[in-house]
Formats: sequence, C-alpha cells, structure tokens
Amino acid sequence: MSKKPSTSLGVELKSFIAPFRFDGSGDFHLKSHETNDKGGLDKDKAEKILEANLKRLKDFQERLYAQNRWSVLLILQGMDAAGKDSAIKAIFAGVNPQGCEVHSFKQPTANELEHDFMWRHVVALPQRGHIGIFNRSYYEECLVPRVHREILAKEKLPPKLVTKNIWGERFGDISAFERYLSRNGTVILKFFLNISKEEQRKRFLPITNGSRGW
Amino acid sequence: MSKKPSTSLGVELKSFIAPFRFDGSGDFHLKSHETNDKGGLDKDKAEKILEANLKRLKDFQERLYAQNRWSVLLILQGMDAAGKDSAIKAIFAGVNPQGCEVHSFKQPTANELEHDFMWRHVVALPQRGHIGIFNRSYYEECLVPRVHREILAKEKLPPKLVTKNIWGERFGDISAFERYLSRNGTVILKFFLNISKEEQRKRFLPITNGSRGW
Amino acid sequence: MSKKPSTSLGVELKSFIAPFRFDGSGDFHLKSHETNDKGGLDKDKAEKILEANLKRLKDFQERLYAQNRWSVLLILQGMDAAGKDSAIKAIFAGVNPQGCEVHSFKQPTANELEHDFMWRHVVALPQRGHIGIFNRSYYEECLVPRVHREILAKEKLPPKLVTKNIWGERFGDISAFERYLSRNGTVILKFFLNISKEEQRKRFLPITNGSRGW
Amino acid sequence: MSKKPSTSLGVELKSFIAPFRFDGSGDFHLKSHETNDKGGLDKDKAEKILEANLKRLKDFQERLYAQNRWSVLLILQGMDAAGKDSAIKAIFAGVNPQGCEVHSFKQPTANELEHDFMWRHVVALPQRGHIGIFNRSYYEECLVPRVHREILAKEKLPPKLVTKNIWGERFGDISAFERYLSRNGTVILKFFLNISKEEQRKRFLPITNGSRGW
Repeated sequence: MSKKPSTSLGVELKSFIAPFRFDGSGDFHLKSHETNDKGGLDKDKAEKILEANLKRLKDFQERLYAQNRWSVLLILQGMDAAGKDSAIKAIFAGVNPQGCEVHSFKQPTANELEHDFMWRHVVALPQRGHIGIFNRSYYEECLVPRVHREILAKEKLPPKLVTKNIWGERFGDISAFERYLSRNGTVILKFFLNISKEEQRKRFLPITNGSRGW
Repeated sequence: MSKKPSTSLGVELKSFIAPFRFDGSGDFHLKSHETNDKGGLDKDKAEKILEANLKRLKDFQERLYAQNRWSVLLILQGMDAAGKDSAIKAIFAGVNPQGCEVHSFKQPTANELEHDFMWRHVVALPQRGHIGIFNRSYYEECLVPRVHREILAKEKLPPKLVTKNIWGERFGDISAFERYLSRNGTVILKFFLNISKEEQRKRFLPITNGSRGW
Repeated sequence: MSKKPSTSLGVELKSFIAPFRFDGSGDFHLKSHETNDKGGLDKDKAEKILEANLKRLKDFQERLYAQNRWSVLLILQGMDAAGKDSAIKAIFAGVNPQGCEVHSFKQPTANELEHDFMWRHVVALPQRGHIGIFNRSYYEECLVPRVHREILAKEKLPPKLVTKNIWGERFGDISAFERYLSRNGTVILKFFLNISKEEQRKRFLPITNGSRGW
Repeated sequence: MSKKPSTSLGVELKSFIAPFRFDGSGDFHLKSHETNDKGGLDKDKAEKILEANLKRLKDFQERLYAQNRWSVLLILQGMDAAGKDSAIKAIFAGVNPQGCEVHSFKQPTANELEHDFMWRHVVALPQRGHIGIFNRSYYEECLVPRVHREILAKEKLPPKLVTKNIWGERFGDISAFERYLSRNGTVILKFFLNISKEEQRKRFLPITNGSRGW
C-alpha cells in the first residue's frame, strides 16, 4: 500500500517556500525578488532536503496515481539557461516515470501553427493520476511573439484579430483556461526560475567550450 | 482562381434564415419555435436552394482554404434521429473533402475520460483554412451526465469538485473557450436540429424494420 | 437502406481502367505509358462518366461506412502540378465527408522527424468504414531524401544505419507494412498521376500570373 | 558534459544477464527456464547492483538524449501480477523523466479498435533520444484474442480476413514491423517476466485484503 507522505517534512519546508510563493492574493512584483536569494540555504543543506523530499514526492505520486482523480500540471518558465532542464532532472529523477511525463515546448511546428496558440499544450495535458511537466508553455505566447512580430506573423492569425488588445486577451484566455482545468481536476503549479542577465551570461560561457550537458 | 461566391443568393437566403437564427442578443426561448416550422419552403423549392447554395458553399470553401487564416467550426446538436447525419450528408457532400473534416462524438473512451471534458473536442479542432464539423460536441457534457449521474461518476472527477455549481461552471467554461477560439481565428456556427418527441418516435419506427441507412 | 451500387457502370468502366492499371503481376515500365494518353475519352464523355460514377462512389461509401469493417486508403503520388489536388476535388467532392478524410503530407515537421519515416502516415490512417486519401505519402521518402542528401541528414538517423541498402530496405519495409494493413482490413489503392516535364512546365506558368486556385 | 557510463559494471553484469537472455539465435524453450531462478543473487546483492546500475543507466540516458539519434523501446510482458509495474518503478525511478515515457496498454478503446492492431502502439513510440517503455504491447494481440474469440470479434476485422493463418500472420507482421523500427533507429529490448501459476496465485492474495499498491 502506498505510504502516507511525511507531514513533518512538509511543515519544515513551509518556511523555505513561503518567500518564493505567490498565491494570487495581493500584488506581485518580480523586481522585489533578488535573483540570487538562496533562502537561507547552503548547498549541503539544500541537497539533504532535496533527498528527503524526493521520498515524500514519491509517496505523493503513488497516492495520486492510485486515486486516479486529480492530475498535476507543473509549468516551468525561465530564460534560456535559467535551469529548467536541470530542475526537472534534480527533482523528478526518482519519481516513477509511469505516471510522470515531461513535454518541452520549443518553436511551434508548421502543424501546430495551424491551430490556436494553446492547442499543442492541451493535447499534451496529463491524464488523471499523472504528473505532467511543461518545460516552457503557452506563457511564451505572450512574450516571444510580442517582442518578435515576425513570429506573430507566422501564427497566421486573420489580420483583423491582431489588435492592440491581443496580449490582454491572451492573458485573459490563459487565465480562463487554467480555471477550467482546475475545475476539472488539474492542480496547476507554476515555477518561474528567476536569474539575472549577468548570471545567464556566465552560464552560457561553458556551452561555447562544449562542456555542458542537457 | 477561386470564384467570388454569389452574393445575390446570399441576400435571397437571408429572409429564410432570419427566423431560425439567434445572434446572442436578447432572449431566446426554444419553446417559441415550432418544431415543424418549414419557414415558408416546400420540398421542391428547398432542394433548388440547397443545390444553388452548394455551389456557393464550394466557392466559400475555396477562399477559406486559399487564405489559410480562418477556420470554421460547425457544431450540430439534436436528439437522436433529429437528422444530424443526414444534414451533414445533404449539405457537405459536394464540398472538397481536402479541407473539411467531420468528427462524431459518441460515448467517451476510457482514455478520453482521463482528461477534462472538452479535451477530446480540442484535439479534433479544424486547422486554419478548414471546415470542421462536430456531430454532437461538449454540449452533451451539460446534458447527459446531468441527467444520468452514473455517467458523471465515470468522468472520475475528484468528489470535492462535483458541487451544485458544476453545470453553471461548465456553461461558463464552454463560453470562455469559444470566445478564445473566436479570438484565434475560428468562426463557430451552432445548429440545433429541433424535432418533437412525436416526430422522433415516428423516425425511430423504420429502424426497427431494418430499413434505415446511416 | 444504402442502395446497391450500379454494377453495369462498373462493367462499362473496366475497359477504360484496364490500360492504366497494374495489379502487381508481371513487369511494369512507366516509360511504356504515354503521359498524354487519354484512354479513348474526350472531355465531354469523361465528365459524363465522372458524374455517373460519383453516384456509384457514394453508394459504395455508404456501404463501407455501414459495414464498418474495411477501410480504404487512396494514395496519390505525382510531381508538382500533376493534378493531385484537382483529382481529389473532382472525384471526392460529392462523397459524404463524414467518412472521408484527406491528409496532405508536406515537408515533415520537427516532431515528425523525431520518428521513423512512416510514423506520421500511420497516425493518419483511416479508421474502419472510412476512406482515407493521402495526398503524397511515405513513397516520397524513397525519392526526395535519395536525391537531396541534406534532407536525409535532417531525418537524424544514426549514421551506421545509413548504408547503401537503405532504399532497398525502405521499399521492403513499405511493402511489408502495406501487406500488414491489407491483412487487417485496409484496401490500399495507389494512383500515380503521370505528366511530362513539358506539361508540368506549362501548368506552372499560370501560377506566376497569380490565377491558379488550390 | 554527460559522463561516460561505467564499463566495469557492464562487464560484471554480463554473467548475471547471460542465462536470461535470448539473442534470437538457436532455439528457445520457455519451459527450460525455472520461474524461481534467482540467477545466483540474493536480495542484498541484487539491491546493491540495482543501485550501482541506476547510475549507469542515467549516464546512458544522458548520452542517448544528447545524441538524439537512437531511441530505445522496452517491451514488458508477463501475466497479471508478474511484476511489470514494480519492475518499471524499481529500475526507472531515477532516470530523468524528460526523455523517458511509459505507456500501459490495457483493453483497447472503441477508437483504437477502429484501427489495425498495432496502431495504438505505433502512435505511442518513443521519439529519437528517448526511452519508451511499453507495459504490455501488441504481443497481447497474439494471445488474448486467440483464446477469447469474443475479443477477436470486437476487433471488427472483415470476416474473410479471419482465417486459420491469422496468428502466423500477426507474428510475421510484428517481426517485420520490429525490423523496420530497428532500421530506423529504435533499439527494441523485450522482457518477459516469467512467474509460475502458483506464484501468481500467492501474489493475488494480498490484493483481496486491500493492501497492495499500484
């Protein structure tokens, strides 16, 4: 039988999580968060917690899978080199892959551009009992084509629909869509990996020397 | 080059369509519509119009396909034997199948039940330039499981999400989803084939004699 | 009930079809076929037959759909401008689109290149009772990448698998796959629209004047 | 950079694997294998090897993913309670889920029955760089409907195709299909978890007491 996940660890972790968590109430300003805030943890302590928590995560996943009612959708966003791939590997290697799927959303394909901008993400949603991890998501669709208009042009929208309201509409539509998913049993957890431009530059350096993995 | 669809026929048809059309403004009461209202047409005249209009529909489809910006989603609802299959055949046999797809939504499969209730419909949405025809749709999800609670149970929703608000939420979510599709280039046209219980009974009779097609 | 398709027309058509049909027995040489062979038909007569045959095709489709056992897969191949799109439109506009799907295979997408070369075609196969039309198909995979090695490179095959036997293997694999489909209820009919280079050049001309449809 | 997987462990493991491995040469008789053969390992030693090997598996997976050329398909077969789910969990929890997908094939859905018997498995094949795990597979299609003819009937094959050769044809078609996959970069590894009827009976007992996990 699946074991009851540890609650004491959950309590201990709360204080570490709180400063980085936004529950939707009140205002949120990214700028009031330091990108190098370690949250009072050093590497050793963090690794110990990570290890202890992996056990807890496994237990939770077993229950999720056995119940087969809820699904969990994790959305990871962040600039290139923010650590999305590494975070997935560090946290989820350990979880039973039967019940956990990762989808990486890169440049949309020709076929995907023939549909509404969330279509390819909907197709990939986790089924009940499963954890789905989106490495990037539809949030990109409010960022990349907004800055690069040639990318918006490739989305083949009828010209009369490309108004100055389009970004507000997209945020509204995403919000409505996530509310719909919540009402149907999907718990959505969103993570923004917040690094500075300077840190990003440093992380890119090793790549040019050919020594970085995936 | 694709020909310009006939506009004079469009004008002529308007008066026949108007009494059966609801554009969302004002109130709508199904009961104020007679199920046997022929709209001032006899069979001969209707067939002539149908034939003339098929030509017009083909021209429109060519333009839709060539532009490759908009998509058209037709949703047909109606009781069993209301004539959904026949309507599709009578109206769309004549249209280029390269650019027109029909999806019939019957009882959801085990895999489909593992997802939110609109998931299987989203997967089947028409791409840009195409006409998609939904023979039944997510509207069933506000009817069938509402009456038959054992069908709702099969949807495997977490119990705490099955509240008295669920039907209102579903209508709200459908409405938000259709608004999203419209903003992204899908024109949605909905048809309710309105027959009486008595007419349905009559239409079912021949089936038991084995003489009805599909 | 679905009507019995006309057999007398079937008999009449046989003599027109025979010279263009290869049933797999004996040798076949494309060069022994004139590209401008009209098969003893002028345009008027051909259109009359086409019209009469459309009726027959509809009846056959009704039976196919009602039985829900067999599926039909039509594969159209031919050079650009050979008339694949037009053939689909001329022959299949008239057939009930509920039961007939067309798939056009263009340049494979990034996602499709992550799979074996027939994967995207398998996904699109017609279900029982349906007619599936492939506008181009996996046969391209024995032609295009064979001539353009940079396209083969994009298929990301492990280098040790790209041997001089690869084209022979692909033909063998296609042949085995089609045999498998036949054994499982799919009737495969293949059409090569055979035009001359000169005819192709002529047909391309109007496009540059902007007057050609889809 | 991804580390070189340990080769010394690979050498050490060979002798444990050899008695349980069939490479296709010579004859194979399931009956000459004891179902309770522990291969000279006790639980402690086995767990140590499993742990050491997990590290090796991770390194291999990183290389597979980084190369993005080959894909690995693991097929697990075995009677109910043979330990397929547990094997996946014990071996693959630890592998990066970004690059590893598990598909469990249960009773085919209505939609899946509308296609050839391998269609649903093809759709789920791993992409290049990924490990795909099939928990049951198309091999079931040569077992279950062979014994239970009512299940074969549900596959809606045209009656004339259901001959006494059907099982031989299915094995031949599977074999040809796997050869095709191999030629296109998929390494297929098949595992049969071989338990006795008596052991199966024992393992089922706890379930009725409600104490078994997933």
